[in-house]
Amino acid sequence: MAVQVTETATTPAVALGPAAALSCRECGQRFPLGPIFACQECFGPLEVAYDLPSGDPESLRKRIEAGPHNIWRYAPLLPVPADVADKPNLNPGFTQLVKADRLAAELGVTGGLYVKDDSGNPTHSFKDRVVAIAVEAARAFGFTTLSCSSTGNLAGAVGAAARRAGLKSCVFIPHDLEAGKVVMAAVYGGDLVGIEGNYDDVNRFCSELIGDPLGEGWGFVNVNLRPYYGEGSKTLAYEICEQLGWQLPDQIVIPIASGSQLTKIDKGFKELIALGLVEDRPYKIFGAQAEGCSPVSAAFKAGHDVVRPQKPNTIAKSLAIGNPADGPYVLDIARRTGGAVEDVDDGQVVDAIKLLARTEGIFAETAGGVTVGVTKKLIEDGLLDPALTTVVLNTGDGLKTLDAVAAGPTATIRPDLDAFRAAGLAG
Amino acid sequence: MAVQVTETATTPAVALGPAAALSCRECGQRFPLGPIFACQECFGPLEVAYDLPSGDPESLRKRIEAGPHNIWRYAPLLPVPADVADKPNLNPGFTQLVKADRLAAELGVTGGLYVKDDSGNPTHSFKDRVVAIAVEAARAFGFTTLSCSSTGNLAGAVGAAARRAGLKSCVFIPHDLEAGKVVMAAVYGGDLVGIEGNYDDVNRFCSELIGDPLGEGWGFVNVNLRPYYGEGSKTLAYEICEQLGWQLPDQIVIPIASGSQLTKIDKGFKELIALGLVEDRPYKIFGAQAEGCSPVSAAFKAGHDVVRPQKPNTIAKSLAIGNPADGPYVLDIARRTGGAVEDVDDGQVVDAIKLLARTEGIFAETAGGVTVGVTKKLIEDGLLDPALTTVVLNTGDGLKTLDAVAAGPTATIRPDLDAFRAAGLAG
Repeated sequence: MAVQVTETATTPAVALGPAAALSCRECGQRFPLGPIFACQECFGPLEVAYDLPSGDPESLRKRIEAGPHNIWRYAPLLPVPADVADKPNLNPGFTQLVKADRLAAELGVTGGLYVKDDSGNPTHSFKDRVVAIAVEAARAFGFTTLSCSSTGNLAGAVGAAARRAGLKSCVFIPHDLEAGKVVMAAVYGGDLVGIEGNYDDVNRFCSELIGDPLGEGWGFVNVNLRPYYGEGSKTLAYEICEQLGWQLPDQIVIPIASGSQLTKIDKGFKELIALGLVEDRPYKIFGAQAEGCSPVSAAFKAGHDVVRPQKPNTIAKSLAIGNPADGPYVLDIARRTGGAVEDVDDGQVVDAIKLLARTEGIFAETAGGVTVGVTKKLIEDGLLDPALTTVVLNTGDGLKTLDAVAAGPTATIRPDLDAFRAAGLAG
Repeated sequence: MAVQVTETATTPAVALGPAAALSCRECGQRFPLGPIFACQECFGPLEVAYDLPSGDPESLRKRIEAGPHNIWRYAPLLPVPADVADKPNLNPGFTQLVKADRLAAELGVTGGLYVKDDSGNPTHSFKDRVVAIAVEAARAFGFTTLSCSSTGNLAGAVGAAARRAGLKSCVFIPHDLEAGKVVMAAVYGGDLVGIEGNYDDVNRFCSELIGDPLGEGWGFVNVNLRPYYGEGSKTLAYEICEQLGWQLPDQIVIPIASGSQLTKIDKGFKELIALGLVEDRPYKIFGAQAEGCSPVSAAFKAGHDVVRPQKPNTIAKSLAIGNPADGPYVLDIARRTGGAVEDVDDGQVVDAIKLLARTEGIFAETAGGVTVGVTKKLIEDGLLDPALTTVVLNTGDGLKTLDAVAAGPTATIRPDLDAFRAAGLAG
């Protein structure tokens, strides 16, 4: 899990910037860069190891600040070619970090509360970040079809990114997703396959497909390209620190689906410390789940090191992964940093969506309701210190989960003043 | 219609940056800045007149480039207080100008084709730009309730912006809007009133309300704050030129609802020329309508100077204004610049939405289908020169007009390889 800032690089077969090799998160064994995701020694998950820039932090900071207003400003820290910004790509990132003073007042936060609002990305979820990196890996490895298993947001992100990049796409989703996510996944014109089952069934199917000749030559962004893909979430850490004036937040609340995002944000913070771009001081990472799919929260509360799979049943479908691959790493990070993992029920999710909307004018997806709801609960339970600088992630857009919020007109009237007067809304 | 760069300023009663006065677009009469929208002499529409910065263009350009990555970088050219960026506001703008090479190839454009993608704004339409300016005017005039008549996008933008700014809101929409727009208008918790009628009925009702004690103290962004509100569309012109490397595009295709946006983009281009920020050279402005609501296109083709109202019937509901206030000004600009106004039918709108999605990975609202469809038609008819640099506006988001596109899974299958093989999608 340690960040390797300088090391003897395995000469990479492909040019992916500072990416030097893949290394096993369990046994540390290293492999050349390629479309592999499991250690050939111990079957542990692989991640990208870097030769990160050495030298003066100030010049690196200036280089970043002079870069484009998207994730490619951090290209020196990502597994992408140096000329990445010149290629057709959705160019996500550098979304707003909203100073949420009105939400802070409602929650009693005095140390500064910020919402990192990733609904501003091209397909309106954080998935554009990870897919953008996967696209570059797919190009490097010569794949011409981009694929994935998805709870919805990823399907749209892959469909859109493939088209911008000139790749084909074939994505797999559970058959019962929200209408907005289905249309968005289909509209870009690639193949979209509904699977009769839940996300874990879809995921298992994709793992089979990748071992079969049927899936040959396909880049599954969250399977055989997963080590690259996951690194896209580091950009959330980079952006938050840069937007806070190159400072770490004291506390951050992150939703947990597979858990990958949370582990990569921690990795990003550690890299910035190692590079001297931020001051090295403690930060606490909190994970947020929906009660109807809370395997990591349950394990955290029970003091377990492993995560027992659950069958998901929650309106927060983008977080409905019952068997989260990175669960044990999440537990480790939450405990190591002094954070926690907590969950809220579906009613609290909806209340939190509405709370965020009416205080800050941000219409979050159910996953955003989960993080805001968990933040409220953590404060009430004394686990999150309201006197410290706190960042809450909104990773998606309310327009994709319309059914979750019952919101409609206060009144419907004829177009005349008497009817309006009778409705009693004036003044 | 001339841009007044320097003049003897009427001392403004309120501090709205370079805004010096309101002036009548018909007779030129000037009035102090205030919540008025019609000339007291001739009933013509009022617009903001400025004391724009004088002096070295290079230093102004540098000041802009050092500003925030949203519309407030252009605060020196907008009717907003100098400290606008420090106030709670949705901070829209600086959306992506996408180099659309794959769309260009399909349309035969060789001179460079760009899509200005305003779905990246906080509530995913260009309306966030105009509302952001109106919010500052509402603050300056002491209004505590923000209101509007809306075809949907504006309702969401006003609801969200009011909440971020700590204002109340009450917005009026036709009762039969798309579900996504209704939920988005309601979720921020202000009052939302459905009106039994079309947009023109809603608009007439709001004009009555503003003259009645019931509406006293309300800032209607597109009625009594309209002169300020409209100026927000200038930022599209500023951003496009800056993103093209401080150059005017040769041609631009703009959707027409009220026509305000098109007139303000022209105003923005003229200001940049007057300020020396771009080279003074010809540009052509094209207007785009849906056939089912094409009063300006019909007038253009008939050679009329006035616009005959129509009863709208089109899936492009955000453009469904049958009696467009700025219609005559649009006709004037299209003719003066050598452009045109054209329309496409609903089938062509849907085809164009899908064309943009499958070539560029951009999921546009119906209004974006209108501009892309009209661009295609203008090229086919020889009115738009494919050898020139062309910008097409996408002003909204496909997630808000889901019903317009019938898009769903290519196949729905059991999670096994045999079922996938039988679906015939592999490879």
